[in-house]
Amino acid sequence: LRTNPAKLLVVGYVGYMLAGWLLLSLPFAHEGPVAAIDNFFTAVSAVSTTGLVTVDPGSNYSFFGELIILLLIQVGGVGYMTIGSFAVMATAHKLSPLREKMARAAFALPKDLKPGHFILTVVIFTLVCEAIGALALYFIFAGAGQEDAVWSAIFHAVSAFCTAGFSLNPNSFEAYSGDVGLNVVISALSLLGAMGFLVIHDVWRNFTSAAFHLGFTTKVILRITGAFLFIGTLVLFVADPGIAALQPTERLLAAFFQTMTATTTVGFNTVPIGALSMSVLMVLFVLMAIGASPSGTGGGLKTTTFAALLAIMRSTLKQRSRVRFFKRPIAASRLQAAGASAVYFIVLLAIAVFLLGLTDPQFAFDRVVFEVISALGTVGLSMGITGDLSSLGKLIIIVLMTAGRVGILTFGIAIAMHDETRAEEEDNELLF
Amino acid sequence: LRTNPAKLLVVGYVGYMLAGWLLLSLPFAHEGPVAAIDNFFTAVSAVSTTGLVTVDPGSNYSFFGELIILLLIQVGGVGYMTIGSFAVMATAHKLSPLREKMARAAFALPKDLKPGHFILTVVIFTLVCEAIGALALYFIFAGAGQEDAVWSAIFHAVSAFCTAGFSLNPNSFEAYSGDVGLNVVISALSLLGAMGFLVIHDVWRNFTSAAFHLGFTTKVILRITGAFLFIGTLVLFVADPGIAALQPTERLLAAFFQTMTATTTVGFNTVPIGALSMSVLMVLFVLMAIGASPSGTGGGLKTTTFAALLAIMRSTLKQRSRVRFFKRPIAASRLQAAGASAVYFIVLLAIAVFLLGLTDPQFAFDRVVFEVISALGTVGLSMGITGDLSSLGKLIIIVLMTAGRVGILTFGIAIAMHDETRAEEEDNELLF
Ligand SMILES: [K+]
Ligand SMILES: [K+]
Repeated sequence: LRTNPAKLLVVGYVGYMLAGWLLLSLPFAHEGPVAAIDNFFTAVSAVSTTGLVTVDPGSNYSFFGELIILLLIQVGGVGYMTIGSFAVMATAHKLSPLREKMARAAFALPKDLKPGHFILTVVIFTLVCEAIGALALYFIFAGAGQEDAVWSAIFHAVSAFCTAGFSLNPNSFEAYSGDVGLNVVISALSLLGAMGFLVIHDVWRNFTSAAFHLGFTTKVILRITGAFLFIGTLVLFVADPGIAALQPTERLLAAFFQTMTATTTVGFNTVPIGALSMSVLMVLFVLMAIGASPSGTGGGLKTTTFAALLAIMRSTLKQRSRVRFFKRPIAASRLQAAGASAVYFIVLLAIAVFLLGLTDPQFAFDRVVFEVISALGTVGLSMGITGDLSSLGKLIIIVLMTAGRVGILTFGIAIAMHDETRAEEEDNELLF
Repeated sequence: LRTNPAKLLVVGYVGYMLAGWLLLSLPFAHEGPVAAIDNFFTAVSAVSTTGLVTVDPGSNYSFFGELIILLLIQVGGVGYMTIGSFAVMATAHKLSPLREKMARAAFALPKDLKPGHFILTVVIFTLVCEAIGALALYFIFAGAGQEDAVWSAIFHAVSAFCTAGFSLNPNSFEAYSGDVGLNVVISALSLLGAMGFLVIHDVWRNFTSAAFHLGFTTKVILRITGAFLFIGTLVLFVADPGIAALQPTERLLAAFFQTMTATTTVGFNTVPIGALSMSVLMVLFVLMAIGASPSGTGGGLKTTTFAALLAIMRSTLKQRSRVRFFKRPIAASRLQAAGASAVYFIVLLAIAVFLLGLTDPQFAFDRVVFEVISALGTVGLSMGITGDLSSLGKLIIIVLMTAGRVGILTFGIAIAMHDETRAEEEDNELLF
């Protein structure tokens, strides 16, 4: 019996969400009563590493509850690769050459890595980054006199690396907007998580081995991430009246952090998002929708998808018959996947805004669009309406967070199958 | 010397816009003083058949001024095909086979039609439709006691068929929201213009000749236009509180007319757009962005582009290796053009909203997004901010109206060149 791995992946994610809901519903998981819809919302937000919250996690959940949230984040973030691999492996006792090829394509593994070994390496890389980050955060939090500095350091380090953006502080890191140390540590963790092990691995080998050169995908990811950070910081520094009113250092930090938080889809914030100007909101919309890189823990359409879309536009404008990017032709299947992801994103965005207009008509258009893009991109930033949504509104956001995490990956797996023969492909169609 | 036809087309359009500006600047063109930027805005809005206005045309321009506007609309609407053909012809004394092939591809001409003959046919078709429409409108306006019923009937008939949406009434057709005759005549003219001669020609032959079957493109256009009108009317009928408060007949007319005005990109309205609910605005955003059909006078990304985008998404989701629509494979160049147009549309939308956030920060996000999509799709509906924009804001809208009309067509021409040989293509690249 062969089953579609994309379906198994979705089932796997939903399973973790339901298990998380169950655990968060246990009486000793909260400090006071939390509604069932809010526990479900928190579980989905954690597994999808979105970070949107309808109730403040720090004051509403017990240590046990916060531990569950942390584990869900860790499973969701790292599992973004591993659960998928398990789902593929579940269809066969051992990986057949075809299945292995699919797994490689779907999770962008380099040819010299075995999936099992790869998962272990990712887990070790994750734990090392998080441990170093937690240590650094401990000194910052202890120095600032934050209570439970140890737990807070661990929680926020994991939340940052997994680009979840869950915070135990009611206002995220708004109290640390001028703290250089916190800005650096959280940004470093988020960027490492968002770019992912493969990119870091590639960069590391580039520095240590004279014979090794950066792969094409790594180059694209590094250049686009760099360009986004630079342009975003510049625009937010100049164009937002609220940020411009800060002291020079804090202003630069705030401009960089809010850009970083959108492009890595981590979703922490150091200034109130609801007070940003329309121009800056538009920049954040674009950054959040494009999101992070395919080999990391972040969400969104992915920088590589953006590269493909940009290549389609530029090559068409320049009247080239072949779509190229950095002088390299891009495969038709890749272009199709990029186009499909973007269309799917816009379709979900439009339907969600339409439905939220019916369920929660009191909110302004920009706040609703922000919430929807934030959920679809698994970012977790909000202009402040999440907790005030109706139950139906919360359910819509729950669906978006799930689709945002699972949907785009599903596209990736689907397109990986396109390398199969015609007979294989028709076989797969019948199995749907 | 060979010149790029896309560039010539843009130059041609901008030439008409500047000529229109000059004529509208003549002292006897207005009733009172009109600022230079507003005359320019009106000229660009007319040539691009958008219909956005910063000053009310009926009270600010003299009969001469209104006549100029009408001629600009006529040139812009019908010229959407013909100016392009002239631009292509200008590069060669006679149409070479290659150029003729390009013109056919760019303007979707069937193989048995000669361009010269085609233009003449389109002009006759246009004038006949407009004359019948004007006659019908005359009886409606005269019956309603509208002053200058003859001129008003001619003006609105041309404005409807060319999907320009310019009105001599300050509130468009809000006074006629319950008038069945006006709703039918304006809708018929707009739909004829928006679908275009080729579709009508195809449908006509399908009815008159037993041997003739509808072409694939015609089928796609008819089905999508029909589906949009049905779904849009249903949604607006049910989901908008303002429309729901009307009497049953007027409610149905209003739901249909506002759907029709968005999907044909004509831009007349019978209810105030600024009072519509967020859900309905979202529907209008989608309809306006997709817009009309490629062989008509309307704007937007086009229904055929929408079909291609939908096909990319569905085929990818269904894991087909070939993108199909209605069981027909779609050419890669067509898919590329559709993707490029959509990306280009979104890039322009994001940049425009960003800039308008800087030039006109006092307006709410939904009103600005509405204005931008309306301009890019050459629709002309507005939530009421057009006249209150700053001069820089007006200039941004002017650029959008020009890009909306010229840009997407430029993509079409660009993609038509992809059928050329590699040597031809490189030749073209050098000429850029
Ligand atoms: K997040
Ligand atoms: K229009």
